[in-house]
Amino acid sequence: MHGIWLADGQTTLRGDLPRAELPADEVRIRPTLMGVCRTDLELMAGYYPFTGVLGHEFVGIVEEGPTEWLGQRVVGEINAICGRCHSCQSGRGNHCLERTVLGIVGRDGCFAESFLLPQRNLSVVPDGVLDECAVFTEPLAAAMRIPEQVDLCPGDRCLVVGDGRLGQLVARVLARRHLTPMVLGRHERKLSLLEKYPIESTTDEAKIEAGGFDVAIECTGNASGFETARRALRPLGTLVMKSTYAGQLHCDASALVVDEIQLVGSRCGPFAPALAALSDGSIDPRDLIDDEFTLEDGLAGLRRGAEPGVLKVLLRPS
Amino acid sequence: MHGIWLADGQTTLRGDLPRAELPADEVRIRPTLMGVCRTDLELMAGYYPFTGVLGHEFVGIVEEGPTEWLGQRVVGEINAICGRCHSCQSGRGNHCLERTVLGIVGRDGCFAESFLLPQRNLSVVPDGVLDECAVFTEPLAAAMRIPEQVDLCPGDRCLVVGDGRLGQLVARVLARRHLTPMVLGRHERKLSLLEKYPIESTTDEAKIEAGGFDVAIECTGNASGFETARRALRPLGTLVMKSTYAGQLHCDASALVVDEIQLVGSRCGPFAPALAALSDGSIDPRDLIDDEFTLEDGLAGLRRGAEPGVLKVLLRPS
Repeated sequence: MHGIWLADGQTTLRGDLPRAELPADEVRIRPTLMGVCRTDLELMAGYYPFTGVLGHEFVGIVEEGPTEWLGQRVVGEINAICGRCHSCQSGRGNHCLERTVLGIVGRDGCFAESFLLPQRNLSVVPDGVLDECAVFTEPLAAAMRIPEQVDLCPGDRCLVVGDGRLGQLVARVLARRHLTPMVLGRHERKLSLLEKYPIESTTDEAKIEAGGFDVAIECTGNASGFETARRALRPLGTLVMKSTYAGQLHCDASALVVDEIQLVGSRCGPFAPALAALSDGSIDPRDLIDDEFTLEDGLAGLRRGAEPGVLKVLLRPS
Repeated sequence: MHGIWLADGQTTLRGDLPRAELPADEVRIRPTLMGVCRTDLELMAGYYPFTGVLGHEFVGIVEEGPTEWLGQRVVGEINAICGRCHSCQSGRGNHCLERTVLGIVGRDGCFAESFLLPQRNLSVVPDGVLDECAVFTEPLAAAMRIPEQVDLCPGDRCLVVGDGRLGQLVARVLARRHLTPMVLGRHERKLSLLEKYPIESTTDEAKIEAGGFDVAIECTGNASGFETARRALRPLGTLVMKSTYAGQLHCDASALVVDEIQLVGSRCGPFAPALAALSDGSIDPRDLIDDEFTLEDGLAGLRRGAEPGVLKVLLRPS
C-alpha cells in the first residue's frame, strides 16, 4: 500500500506499507480527498515525536467494516479513545489519557491508500456537501470549539490574530454567529478572501486598539501573535490559544492577575455543527484551497503547504 | 498627621502628613486596626511604582462625611472608580481605567491616623464581628473572588499552592463550600492551622499527583508555584493565578493548547459574602495573626511581615 511515512524526521513516499488488521470496533477508510495541516508540518519538523503515516484531515469511503458503514462517505474525529480511563469516564473523551490520534500520536494517519478509525469517530457526510468542502470538517470543527469554551455575546469585539487556514475558519465561524471579528494578518491576498462576508481586516497592527477587544484568538502559532492578542485585550478579556506552538509562552504574570485575564487553550471541536455549516452553505471553505497534488506526489504537496502565504493544499488519491 | 510614607523606595514614618480635603462623595476614616499585605511589601521593594501612604487592609470608624456614615464602623473596597469610563459603564468597575487604589495606585492608603475612601466603597461591619476579624475582610473577599470566576462543583479536586496568608484564606473558602482542598506548603506550623477544619495538607510535593486536580490555585507569587500548579492539573483543568508576582510567566504553550487548560487571573473580590462568613463564624481568621505593632512602630511591623514564615501582622493606632 502507498502512503506518506514519517520516521526519524524523514518523510518518504512508501509503496510497501502493510494493511493493518481491522479491530472489531473500527472501519477501514479509503480517503477520496485529504488536507495538509500545519500540525503535519510541525511533526515533520520534529516538534513532536511521531513515527507512522502522516495526515488527519480527510473525507473518504468506508471500504471494510460492519455492513451499515460499508460504502458510506465519512469524515472522522481524530482522537481514538479508550472509553475506560478517568478522562473518558468523566466526559472528557477528547482528553483520553490512553488516546491515539490519527497521524499524530500512535496511530497511522490518512495520507495512504487506506487507514483505520473507530466507528464511534465517524460522521456521514450529507449528500450535498462536496468532498472539497467536507475535507475541511476537522479544522472547521476546531474553530467551532471556541464558542463551546467561551461565552460569545452579540456586540463582543473579537480579534483574530492570523490570516492563515485556521484564522480564516475562525473568523468565518465568528461572523456566522453574527459577531463582527477583526482579523489581523500579514497577507493582503488572504485578507481579501474575507471581504465577501464581510469581515473587517488589516495588516497594520497599529490599527489594533490596545485594550480594545473582549476576546482575542491567537491563530498564528508564534509568540508575537500571542503578545499581539494579549495587548489587544481589555481587563477581564479572554485570550483563546488556538494554535500550538513549539516553545515557551512568556507573558507578564502580574498583568494577567491585575487585569484578570483568562487564557483558554483550545484544540479539537465538534463535527456535527461543522458539517451542518458546510451543508447549509453558511461556510464555504473552497476559496482557501491553494493547490492540489496526487498522493504519489504528496511530498511535493507537503513542501507546498509549508511555503509562506500558502493556504490549504489538498492531496488526492492517485 | 502620622502615617507610613513610601517614596523612591524609602519607607518612613512621617508626622507631618497633611489632612487632605474631603471630596463630596467620600468619607474620612480613622482606622482602628490595619493589616500588612504582601502587596505592601512588593510596593516597598519597588516592584510597582507608588508614592504615598501605604496600606489597604483596615477596619475603622467614619469620622467625617455625611451624617448617615458618621461613627459607623466600616471596611472598604480598595478600588476607587470613576463610574464613567468604558469599563465602569460595562459593569467592570473594579477594572475602571481611571481608578485609584487605596495605598497602591494614586491614592494615599490606610496606614495613617486617617484616610479617605468613596462612600460607595464602604460596608458597615456587623456588630458581632471583632475588629481582629473584620480587618481580614479585604483579603478574604479576594479569596472569595475565585468561586465568582470558576465553576466549582462538589467532588472537584482543588489544590491550593502556598500556605501563606492568602493560601490559608483560599483553602478555608473552598472548605466552607464543601470542597476538599489539598494545600501544598513549606511550613508545618502554618499547615497545622488547617487541621481543625479539617483541610488536608502536605509539605511534600511528591504527594501531589501530576494531572490529579481539577482546579489549582497559585497563592505563592512565584514561578515555581505556578509550575507546581500547572503540573497538578488534569486536561481541561483551571489554574487560578491568585498572586501577583514580578517577572515573566513561562510555560509550555503547546501543552496548554493540547490539554485545553484555562488560566484565570484573579484579584479583588466581593465584600458582602466575606463579611457574612466572618459574621456567622464559618471563617475565623484570628489564628493567622502572628504579631501586632503600633502604627508608630509600623516600620518594624512591615519588616516583621516580610520575614519568611510569618502570617498576618496587624498595626494598631498609637
